[in-house]
Amino acid sequence: MDAASLARYDRIRPIRWAGDALELLDQRKLPFAVEYVRCASSDEVAGAIRDLVVRGAPAIGISAAWGVVLASRDIEAATGAEAAKELQPAMDRLNAARPTAVNLAWALARMRAALHVASAGWRDALEREAQAIETEDLAANRAMGQAGAALIAPGSGVLTHCNTGSLATAGFGTALGVIRAGVAADRIARVFAGETRPWNQGARLTVWELQQDGIDATLIADAAASHLMKTGRVQWVVVGADRICANGDTANKIGTYQLALAARHHGVKFMVVAPSSTVDMATASGDLIEIEERDPAELLSHRGERTVAEGVRAWNPVFDVTPHELIDAIVTEKGVIERPDATSMRTVFGS
Amino acid sequence: MDAASLARYDRIRPIRWAGDALELLDQRKLPFAVEYVRCASSDEVAGAIRDLVVRGAPAIGISAAWGVVLASRDIEAATGAEAAKELQPAMDRLNAARPTAVNLAWALARMRAALHVASAGWRDALEREAQAIETEDLAANRAMGQAGAALIAPGSGVLTHCNTGSLATAGFGTALGVIRAGVAADRIARVFAGETRPWNQGARLTVWELQQDGIDATLIADAAASHLMKTGRVQWVVVGADRICANGDTANKIGTYQLALAARHHGVKFMVVAPSSTVDMATASGDLIEIEERDPAELLSHRGERTVAEGVRAWNPVFDVTPHELIDAIVTEKGVIERPDATSMRTVFGS
Repeated sequence: MDAASLARYDRIRPIRWAGDALELLDQRKLPFAVEYVRCASSDEVAGAIRDLVVRGAPAIGISAAWGVVLASRDIEAATGAEAAKELQPAMDRLNAARPTAVNLAWALARMRAALHVASAGWRDALEREAQAIETEDLAANRAMGQAGAALIAPGSGVLTHCNTGSLATAGFGTALGVIRAGVAADRIARVFAGETRPWNQGARLTVWELQQDGIDATLIADAAASHLMKTGRVQWVVVGADRICANGDTANKIGTYQLALAARHHGVKFMVVAPSSTVDMATASGDLIEIEERDPAELLSHRGERTVAEGVRAWNPVFDVTPHELIDAIVTEKGVIERPDATSMRTVFGS
Repeated sequence: MDAASLARYDRIRPIRWAGDALELLDQRKLPFAVEYVRCASSDEVAGAIRDLVVRGAPAIGISAAWGVVLASRDIEAATGAEAAKELQPAMDRLNAARPTAVNLAWALARMRAALHVASAGWRDALEREAQAIETEDLAANRAMGQAGAALIAPGSGVLTHCNTGSLATAGFGTALGVIRAGVAADRIARVFAGETRPWNQGARLTVWELQQDGIDATLIADAAASHLMKTGRVQWVVVGADRICANGDTANKIGTYQLALAARHHGVKFMVVAPSSTVDMATASGDLIEIEERDPAELLSHRGERTVAEGVRAWNPVFDVTPHELIDAIVTEKGVIERPDATSMRTVFGS
């Protein structure tokens, strides 16, 4: 598959560097308005991350990197090390914008490291590093897309969950990158997307994103997934990951675990697609992951309007853990691990 | 458990006969307004059924029966048989209000049969029959509630789906009746309810209904059910049924099948609660049930406001089939069938 063929299915860019500002596609307004928010300062980038203008771990990391470049315009420093010191307060504010996003801290650490090896040319080094973080993400997504698509037999149907697409990354996406590459290679014939309650990333973002690239997708209620599998129209579930443990256990958006259980029951294969920065070899297994719970209000209202009786309680875990036994393949830019376990994970990612 | 103890948890009545009119709790306005719609004629009852003022198969059947009583006020007839002939057009209009509701045709058939055995006293016979349909439903629900609750060990947590409560019946409910009886008997310590997309019967109706009766319930996203089971807080899934086949296979609200799969994986028990009028011994197995699909628009908007990009497709099956192998108990007013199959079903329901 050449780059031109893939590019045909990859037209959305959530992050645009304009030289003197960062333009971020406002994901709060999708799918009804396509508007970019212009951030002319590091603090405006931090605000945009905090206010969910931009979402998705890779996209947040890239945005923060460009935020450091903007912050550098306001300081004077003779060396990179001096600049790093001057930029620390701005980096701290960026890092605090979404403290749980692993890629945010990771991108800021890369920017800091780039400064420390630069001397007088630190301004150029900083901009090159932000550009590299963005470019490498896109390249990794395209590589993962092709590697994942190669596992899928021609004529297959796929089901995805949440949004793991161009909107969540520099472009192309992780799980949605596999779907893009699979459609481009004529391997994927049917795409289904779950609504992904309570944030509705599937309903608001994923089906819109695929529509922009001319990929026909069908939205389903999350609760209809097992019935869909029973009809035989889906051969693979393809999802992203928030964290992959040393044994392959994978934390991802709430509802992923349920899809993996249903997939195994129906003989549907299950694929996790994520950059290697998501792999956490320091955590032995999914049992050790603390599941974040968000405000129950997300289940109790729609666009600020109450939908459930006052006084009702809700339980709103953000993600769940899919045990590695239920995963047929983990696809990263470093390679594909089929039937992952602690041994095969160590082979690719060390210890 | 005496009636007074059960009544404490059973305060909602969706249907009130006022002698000269039928008052129906407007379920379209719940949970934010508790308003009864007054139907002074048979056609107003048919309209209320069609417009979803009243929902739930048993509640629809009872409403239609009272609708026939209202229609009888406008006719003159010397005998029941003559009255039946005069009332046929009104009954046809009631029957057409929700053609897929089995209980609607069943209730109308009972009213017609009552007329045919009555002579000059047919007006009284008609009113007695409507009252009997309502009273028997409530009694059946209380019997099922106690029988189902007896299966649940003290201290258990339960998860339910959709709304199978007082709102869907004469009162007390089917699966929610088991939950009411289980709470009254101190067997159920925790109640969880799934949102039940796309109509949100769980979010709008079930948690409100339980709240009215002082039963503490926690709302979850449908996709969070498996993760909830993994935490060990749920010992039973308790649901209703739209149709139960001769081998125990059960059609119910979309998402039920997924709960049954997850329950089996986690060692959680699975109970179906429904009146025997739901049992269809003429259909051998769930494979023979055609799954109704509703307007995809239900997944694409919220209260008439579009929530998904224009042009996006959705797939909206209304129910799914849970195979009997995944069901631990079917509870009807005629008895409890544990681990149902064709043989045990035949023992209770004949052939």
